[in-house]
Amino acid sequence: MKNFWITEEAIEINDVVNKVTRAEAGAINTFIGTVRELTKGKRTLYLEYQAYTAMAEKKLEEIGKEIDERWENTQTAIAHRVGRLDISDIAVVIAVSTPHRKDAFEASRYAIERIKEIVPIWKKEHWENGELWIGDQKEQVSYEGNLPAKEEMQDD
Amino acid sequence: MKNFWITEEAIEINDVVNKVTRAEAGAINTFIGTVRELTKGKRTLYLEYQAYTAMAEKKLEEIGKEIDERWENTQTAIAHRVGRLDISDIAVVIAVSTPHRKDAFEASRYAIERIKEIVPIWKKEHWENGELWIGDQKEQVSYEGNLPAKEEMQDD
Repeated sequence: MKNFWITEEAIEINDVVNKVTRAEAGAINTFIGTVRELTKGKRTLYLEYQAYTAMAEKKLEEIGKEIDERWENTQTAIAHRVGRLDISDIAVVIAVSTPHRKDAFEASRYAIERIKEIVPIWKKEHWENGELWIGDQKEQVSYEGNLPAKEEMQDD
Repeated sequence: MKNFWITEEAIEINDVVNKVTRAEAGAINTFIGTVRELTKGKRTLYLEYQAYTAMAEKKLEEIGKEIDERWENTQTAIAHRVGRLDISDIAVVIAVSTPHRKDAFEASRYAIERIKEIVPIWKKEHWENGELWIGDQKEQVSYEGNLPAKEEMQDD
């Protein structure tokens, strides 16, 4: 029933979009973050995400409230996957519906930036030649020194 | 097989997103235009869209090429429905995938603006108290004088 959730299962885009579809809305913007194979020439094999689930869901809900305060008549849903993700798998789906399209684009963009700022989700990159836990979504913290810590986010 | 199409059937969001999902992309932005019930207090009952199908698909494809020229490493798919659409039905789905999210947002926004500018699709609004063919997507042309011509787009 809830609009903000962490899941170990593959995310169905429709499940997220359906949460925000409504008669008052003329626009839905959806952001889908997928696992990219190449980052600056380095090949990712797969990723692992971990989250403090209860806290992460609370923070996602908080982002929904922030959007509601900043734009008029919005409805937001966000699902983030955890566990092992392969190339092209969906890591996150954001959907925001609004009466007018400009707001939908802006609010959806806001949501993905805020996810990276405040939601406690960690990512472990598995490359051909090593692996690295990336400690926060902005990637300012790394837990091992064997690979560069300042890798880009998958969808930066 | 094609990435740009006009259809009389309900649009499946996944059909559009699947066209642009790929290992090189970390971001997919999707814009979904739905039929809004209320526009400035006036209640829409349903809409009808008509298109010059061959020309409309050609123009959608042209938008994909424009995006490709303006942003790096994009893939775009667009489906637009025609015929009768009820409240909350999906009129258009745009999906753009890019390596990085900023480009996906920008290119998707560009696509919906360009659709309204160059794609020959007409909309007939059926309100509680009348109806109006809206002659172009920017709604600068109306075919009847019985209702204001400058109605907003569903997703303006």
